[in-house]
Amino acid sequence: MPQAKLNEDERRSALAELSNWALTPGRDAIRRVFVFRNFSEAFGFMARAALTAEKLNHHPEWSNVYKTVDVTLSTHDVDGLTELDLKLARSMDKIAATMGV
Amino acid sequence: MPQAKLNEDERRSALAELSNWALTPGRDAIRRVFVFRNFSEAFGFMARAALTAEKLNHHPEWSNVYKTVDVTLSTHDVDGLTELDLKLARSMDKIAATMGV
Repeated sequence: MPQAKLNEDERRSALAELSNWALTPGRDAIRRVFVFRNFSEAFGFMARAALTAEKLNHHPEWSNVYKTVDVTLSTHDVDGLTELDLKLARSMDKIAATMGV
Repeated sequence: MPQAKLNEDERRSALAELSNWALTPGRDAIRRVFVFRNFSEAFGFMARAALTAEKLNHHPEWSNVYKTVDVTLSTHDVDGLTELDLKLARSMDKIAATMGV
């Protein structure tokens, strides 16, 4: 069963809740840049987020340079934001928060 | 002691040896795109490469989308390629080779 794209109301309330994430210009996607203390912490975050992503069977687009992890979330199957993106974003926020970010 | 930039001879022989890597246009850096079977294998590769990077204290610029890992190596301190980049590239090639990539 494919995920349904968020409607306008759902999108608005999701973005209000996910205050560290912003819509990506020109795409129906959200983005957050996480900055940690060093590579070890940045990759530790990625390892934990990867486990969540695999469990959700929903994966981020992300890049890492030293202590920075730049994450974009969107659902490729529907070319837009779905509930899966919100779940993964919330989980990443929680993981980062446990690391003081 | 900062790493020294590779000279032209060193660069030429390194690129001949690292045949899966290419110079990045407009930058003194090398790049390889690794394609695995799925996210789990791609992230497994990243986890192993991260351990090497941390041991070398030399880190990649890399991005991951599902089964693809796009890696760029350069040494920021000298704004160019050094022996550290070659070491990390060789190590990544070895890890990928053990995974059939």
